[in-house]
Amino acid sequence: MPSKVIQDYEEIGAKKRADRDSNLIKEWLIPESKLPKSKDVLKFPEESGYLSEKEIEVTTSSAPKIVNYIAEHKWTSYEVTSAFCHRSQIAQQLCNCLSEIFYKEALSRARELDTYYEQTGKLKGPLHGLPISLKDNINVKNHASTIGMVDFCFNPKGGMKQNSAIAAMLLDMGAVFYCKTNVPVAMMMPETTNHVYGTTTNPCNRLLSPGGSSGGAACQAALRGSCIEIGSDIGGSIRIPSSFTNIYGLRPTYGRYPTYGTRSGLPGLESVHSVNGPLCASLESLEFYMKTLANGDPSQYDPGVAYRPWQQIVLPSVCSFAVLMDDGHIKPTPPITRGLKMVTEALIKHGHKILDWNPAEHDKLQQLISDFFVADGGKHVLKVTEATGEPLYPYMSNYGTSSEISAGKLWDLQSKRSAVCKAFLDRWMSTAKTTGTGHPIDAIIAPVTPMAGSPLDKFGDYVGYTSVFNALDYSVGIIPVSRANKRLDPVDKSFKPRNASEKFIWDNYDPEETEGGSISVQIACRRGEEEKVVALMKMISGYLGK
Amino acid sequence: MPSKVIQDYEEIGAKKRADRDSNLIKEWLIPESKLPKSKDVLKFPEESGYLSEKEIEVTTSSAPKIVNYIAEHKWTSYEVTSAFCHRSQIAQQLCNCLSEIFYKEALSRARELDTYYEQTGKLKGPLHGLPISLKDNINVKNHASTIGMVDFCFNPKGGMKQNSAIAAMLLDMGAVFYCKTNVPVAMMMPETTNHVYGTTTNPCNRLLSPGGSSGGAACQAALRGSCIEIGSDIGGSIRIPSSFTNIYGLRPTYGRYPTYGTRSGLPGLESVHSVNGPLCASLESLEFYMKTLANGDPSQYDPGVAYRPWQQIVLPSVCSFAVLMDDGHIKPTPPITRGLKMVTEALIKHGHKILDWNPAEHDKLQQLISDFFVADGGKHVLKVTEATGEPLYPYMSNYGTSSEISAGKLWDLQSKRSAVCKAFLDRWMSTAKTTGTGHPIDAIIAPVTPMAGSPLDKFGDYVGYTSVFNALDYSVGIIPVSRANKRLDPVDKSFKPRNASEKFIWDNYDPEETEGGSISVQIACRRGEEEKVVALMKMISGYLGK
Repeated sequence: MPSKVIQDYEEIGAKKRADRDSNLIKEWLIPESKLPKSKDVLKFPEESGYLSEKEIEVTTSSAPKIVNYIAEHKWTSYEVTSAFCHRSQIAQQLCNCLSEIFYKEALSRARELDTYYEQTGKLKGPLHGLPISLKDNINVKNHASTIGMVDFCFNPKGGMKQNSAIAAMLLDMGAVFYCKTNVPVAMMMPETTNHVYGTTTNPCNRLLSPGGSSGGAACQAALRGSCIEIGSDIGGSIRIPSSFTNIYGLRPTYGRYPTYGTRSGLPGLESVHSVNGPLCASLESLEFYMKTLANGDPSQYDPGVAYRPWQQIVLPSVCSFAVLMDDGHIKPTPPITRGLKMVTEALIKHGHKILDWNPAEHDKLQQLISDFFVADGGKHVLKVTEATGEPLYPYMSNYGTSSEISAGKLWDLQSKRSAVCKAFLDRWMSTAKTTGTGHPIDAIIAPVTPMAGSPLDKFGDYVGYTSVFNALDYSVGIIPVSRANKRLDPVDKSFKPRNASEKFIWDNYDPEETEGGSISVQIACRRGEEEKVVALMKMISGYLGK
Repeated sequence: MPSKVIQDYEEIGAKKRADRDSNLIKEWLIPESKLPKSKDVLKFPEESGYLSEKEIEVTTSSAPKIVNYIAEHKWTSYEVTSAFCHRSQIAQQLCNCLSEIFYKEALSRARELDTYYEQTGKLKGPLHGLPISLKDNINVKNHASTIGMVDFCFNPKGGMKQNSAIAAMLLDMGAVFYCKTNVPVAMMMPETTNHVYGTTTNPCNRLLSPGGSSGGAACQAALRGSCIEIGSDIGGSIRIPSSFTNIYGLRPTYGRYPTYGTRSGLPGLESVHSVNGPLCASLESLEFYMKTLANGDPSQYDPGVAYRPWQQIVLPSVCSFAVLMDDGHIKPTPPITRGLKMVTEALIKHGHKILDWNPAEHDKLQQLISDFFVADGGKHVLKVTEATGEPLYPYMSNYGTSSEISAGKLWDLQSKRSAVCKAFLDRWMSTAKTTGTGHPIDAIIAPVTPMAGSPLDKFGDYVGYTSVFNALDYSVGIIPVSRANKRLDPVDKSFKPRNASEKFIWDNYDPEETEGGSISVQIACRRGEEEKVVALMKMISGYLGK
């Protein structure tokens, strides 16, 4: 057999990148010289004059308004799709947030949906005509799912052969796909960069990372290049980027929303499940997505789902919350602490009860989840990276250094994880004795990361604030609280770091560099409590004047 | 250190057995000479004169009637508990169905509940005063969970230290525990026998096995020594015994009913989940259990559960079913085929639609689940059996001969399982094109095993009719259809077995030996469709005149 011609990994990546760029719409391209130099580009799409008033109106509307307007013949799917494609392309030029671009295919699909509606008077489904943006790992037939890995650029040839369960369901409901969003290598790094598409930056402050792994999704949502982004989360991958870009995000519990048939960096890992969820600039859009998908019965598409329709819930008039100010490993930097205090004060002001949350099990949970990620000794990741010789980023060095464990040892780790989750649950339930409401806490309010958006390459090595809730498989929402402000968030020179990870984060905290970075918090409820999470997100965002 | 004195495993088992027997109530003991010699002993408890009329009335009442009568002060928990303890002891004398016996403790708890109700006018919960029997693996504080393994007889000393999540929940709801039921070694054999308590026999025909692993539970439920038995099912362990003893059983999907903190033969295995569910002589009792537990919010007790209250559902007036007459591996013996035809005819007569089910994925699913059981190379089982030197039964020889696989290989098997489950789901959904109802099938009707109760030691090596639904994690009910009848179910001499497993089953089919054995079917719905399973069990049982 002839020896295989090994192409340079950079060459393959460059070709894929060029393919992507060839799908940009030429008439919409902004000349380099007209692109902004500023760090904060959130207002650029609306203030630069490149979008029409109608395009701005469409792209700043919530998803339920858009589908209603289409149903009421006020807007066509074509004009809605075109507006989002246009704004999406501007987002791409500003922050490099996209992997796959297929605006023309989207416009053609939108036209078909419009025709179908005109001719039959029927809507395809509850998402008829609505553009939805997908994270790169969500397979769309005939498009690549590179997940930031060079070997997947043209493998399989001609793109993926099947739609992911969630893509199939959304299409049946009438959605329009127009792009996929950039991710870190194998979606296993907290910053969105890879050897195919390069680095996605944070539109709040382009010196910062939007985080990862749903960094492209969060970036585009913040710039309103989309009204609904679908991301995924196995260690914080929806929550970290949502928190870094000042938008809403939600990580549901596994088994309610479809996940089957996405491309994974760690395929077959089930000790902790990756889940899909929305990232949205508008909370109304997020709620609409959560409700519409749950009610659509994803169990028809995904063998791992049990159907559980969206429930109407009424919050108690007095809720109670446990607030985590510091997990003992890395104390949040000043802007995050300020955000936690703002939320706590708003809750107290509105008559709710506040306790401290003792993170007794957090260390164990985040260690277990780290062990699960490399239970195969990194083999699944290395098989793909080694196929083209692309090097591992420092963030992923453990995939090159871990040893594979046996199935029996994995069973033991899983037993241990269940026991720690039980201890956590028991402590949660035992708060009933101290909340003063007669019930256990309604949620934990916690930092997402210690930072208000991390400077590029400076995330450090800690995702413990988010990963604990993956190990628990809890339902967790992210709400924006404020923006970092160098005047309000000065360096706390009295703080003495307790370990190297904390020192790294605190040494790198520079109020000037972080200026405008996003301040957000997690609202964590128990398994399957998506309705409650959304209700609390609305309640607290309301208190914050959002 | 002094060398540990190794006791003979038989000696340890004998001591544990004697401990159990010492807890029998002397006044209730039936002299050996008065015990029946017949194969079928189902009627003995009521016809032998050992039970009072009141005891018979109580023990043949459904669970909801019992809790209502206690709430209405018609019966006390004490008299209800005493009646079930008495009948339970008769069941034990007839078929050796129990592991732990603690009637006196139960009577004392019942007395406390009665006093509490008298003094406060309040019920402890929706199960106030109701005796419930537990499978041996469900930990009850201060009682052993041997799971049929000699090393667990006195380990930990003094019994288990914590209640299983389900036991804690049932106690909080007011249930009374009075015994635990016998299981096969590690609950991983299809007949209920072990070196501690010996063999449980089938009350329909004591030459037959009640199956396993919830064989003791099924046996006692059939004799109405309980109104609700809780069993567990990882490959058929609720369904096979229910089917062999002519009672109702239900295997729910994982994640709705509590399972945490039970003793497992394969601890930490999550590629397929063991689940708990009811075995009941009365369908009303079964429905009451399913509804009451779901509504009680088990997520407060079990970290693996998401709360999903019981829904009211209305079945379509015309349902459709796919019937599996033969999975291609082992064709059911004549009584089972007759049962399947009875169900099919009843459904057609009532206007429902019937298709054939093509078991295209069954081979793969049952192979995968077999691989998962020994992914650790049998290490977890062997560690326990080797501690006392108890030998492996032939049914478990693969635990001694399998090789452990790596975590990475386990990931690959899990990926494969998900893909096969997806193919199965897609075929299920695609039946919408052929049912004639406009919807996919409502359920699959299938054999439970090829046999109407297996002669002792002759189960063979195949649990593929049940284990496919464990791999799928579907919600599956068992309903009794009829009893084996040598006149109606003669040997089919024309049948040519297609493989050694099938030859073994068919060679061992002896209508004389199987006389009176139970004929039952599975009603399999998709993930989480417990409400639908129960509704279909009621509908079809009604057609069958049950």
